[in-house]
Amino acid sequence: MENQIIVHYQLFGDQTNIQERAYDICLEQTVELPDKLLTDEIRSKIVGKILSIETKTEYSQVRIGFSTDVATYELTQLLNVLFGNISIKVGIKITDVEFPQEYLSHFSGPKFGISGIRKQAKLTDSPLLCTALKPMGTSNLQLAEYAHNFAMGGIHYIKDDHGLSNQRFNEYKERVELCSKAVARANSKTGQLTFYVPNITSPSDQVLMRAEFAQKNGAGGFLICPGLVGMDTMRLISERFDLPIFSHPAMLGTFVTSKENGFSHSLIFGKLQRLAGADASIFPNYGGRFGFSKEECISICKGCTDNLSNIKSIFPVPAGGMTLDKIPEMIDTFGKETIFLVGGGLYSHSSDLTENAKYFSQFLMKS
Amino acid sequence: MENQIIVHYQLFGDQTNIQERAYDICLEQTVELPDKLLTDEIRSKIVGKILSIETKTEYSQVRIGFSTDVATYELTQLLNVLFGNISIKVGIKITDVEFPQEYLSHFSGPKFGISGIRKQAKLTDSPLLCTALKPMGTSNLQLAEYAHNFAMGGIHYIKDDHGLSNQRFNEYKERVELCSKAVARANSKTGQLTFYVPNITSPSDQVLMRAEFAQKNGAGGFLICPGLVGMDTMRLISERFDLPIFSHPAMLGTFVTSKENGFSHSLIFGKLQRLAGADASIFPNYGGRFGFSKEECISICKGCTDNLSNIKSIFPVPAGGMTLDKIPEMIDTFGKETIFLVGGGLYSHSSDLTENAKYFSQFLMKS
Repeated sequence: MENQIIVHYQLFGDQTNIQERAYDICLEQTVELPDKLLTDEIRSKIVGKILSIETKTEYSQVRIGFSTDVATYELTQLLNVLFGNISIKVGIKITDVEFPQEYLSHFSGPKFGISGIRKQAKLTDSPLLCTALKPMGTSNLQLAEYAHNFAMGGIHYIKDDHGLSNQRFNEYKERVELCSKAVARANSKTGQLTFYVPNITSPSDQVLMRAEFAQKNGAGGFLICPGLVGMDTMRLISERFDLPIFSHPAMLGTFVTSKENGFSHSLIFGKLQRLAGADASIFPNYGGRFGFSKEECISICKGCTDNLSNIKSIFPVPAGGMTLDKIPEMIDTFGKETIFLVGGGLYSHSSDLTENAKYFSQFLMKS
Repeated sequence: MENQIIVHYQLFGDQTNIQERAYDICLEQTVELPDKLLTDEIRSKIVGKILSIETKTEYSQVRIGFSTDVATYELTQLLNVLFGNISIKVGIKITDVEFPQEYLSHFSGPKFGISGIRKQAKLTDSPLLCTALKPMGTSNLQLAEYAHNFAMGGIHYIKDDHGLSNQRFNEYKERVELCSKAVARANSKTGQLTFYVPNITSPSDQVLMRAEFAQKNGAGGFLICPGLVGMDTMRLISERFDLPIFSHPAMLGTFVTSKENGFSHSLIFGKLQRLAGADASIFPNYGGRFGFSKEECISICKGCTDNLSNIKSIFPVPAGGMTLDKIPEMIDTFGKETIFLVGGGLYSHSSDLTENAKYFSQFLMKS
């Protein structure tokens, strides 16, 4: 059917009543009533439809179709249909969603995506390098100096640590002004393009103002945590402003920490990020201080770049655990359509941040 | 210390390096750098502090203090400090938060709470009864008739099903107008007070308009899903408007489905709801179609009503699985400071919704 969204779920636990559990999802995500209380018309037009059930060793793979009329073109209601109430049930993992082309045409998706970011950065085929300003509590002046020094060393995107919000010792507007100017100063010396990406994650009545302030004051992108502000707020920022969005995974981790509950990695850090307007999706790299496997990271890349009709491909941004000796393997794993985010590694290599940045950047370009 | 937020975590899994894992939380939630790269000043002012570690059978209970300066008075950054990055780590459950009084004084919390809702409903000591308009796909005219009939039967709050957004067959404005008027018509006949509570969960650029439209057109409260719009958007609605907020748990379930990850029930459905301005917190009752235990439900009630300085107590709203024969036990479990949400039960008891409503309502009042 043209007008249905097909959702893939894995049902863990008791496998004796899978048909019933699957139909329960069809009801729970739409009418929230027992089948016996429904008219034929409601049952046929509103309730989800079981399209297939496949039994695997540990779980059953179920595909359910939901009417696009039920999901509407509002991201909040779409998310609700995909996983709202059943997020509360144990043993359901949502692994993928197939959207009709017509449905996707109602979403703008990423304004930049891979192609737009490459155009902004004027880099046609190398991987990109990103770092973070930290630690919180360092004066804004000092952070701006770090930004300047990283820019001198050829880092492409320099983002705020996502914990930098508007602390009294790291006031937002001052930080944005100082860091933007510092990066511009470096750019004028090097003739290269480095972009400062401030964190605009903030209360609902401030996030648009922070984005506007950043755009007006020379920022080159936005960092935002959709797990904190809501996925749809990121979508709104994407539609209203003209800078690429780096999406940070804070508070989204619980959706993937349990094998038998929540979302697949590729969906929450890939496909849904694109639908919600992210241009680059940050996630913890394997081998770093978080527990994602190599396969999970690769699945995120696929979620970021697989064909999705009018919705652009976006950069996967594996973060953390990157040291010089790992670069060849990381390029082998992620390919060149990647932004590598190096945090602690750039601060600890030596005390000269520009030299550290050059070192990583040149090594990466040659790889 | 006066200026620290004390956070309780349970650390599951490997218990041999708990001190290290606890300190990792202190770093991860603040500076995101290894300790060796920190100055003494940053370490003492910014990094979280381990306050206690207690070893239990299955986990270690850890208390960590975070500076209120780091958390700021922004709910988004507070949530980030509590669980942002570590949501991505396996085996960490956040179970409680102790806030300094000064910190809480910067939050308005619920505008109504239990006392405000009782004042609105003019009910001093009985439990309250709530139901939901459903199923989606029923015409707005028909939903309004349901609302009228429920109101005739003495239901106190009649909310939209949270899946009703702005579908073309359940258009928002028409629904709000029709249902508000239908309830007002019933109130004028009965002389009682019933309130219609439309679902304002919607895209970030529409949620304030929907709230405004509802308030202007006779709604008696708002239903909102903070898991879909973001916790802070609910806070904003609470500050900007003058109707009680019923918070719905859609998409928040994953935070509690795993015993070893995410949030405690009392925190996500209790304390944090209050901080974010909910006046009533809906959660799935035990014995219904979701898997919460009686103990978990009781812990949510405590989260809704335990003393929290200037932040009002709010109504727990156990939902689902309520049949007449269960009412005495439910009152025994939850007490009278409860709004009981009966959905399917009110539709299925008989085909006369007014009679069904009277039946439940009179039975509840006598209990």
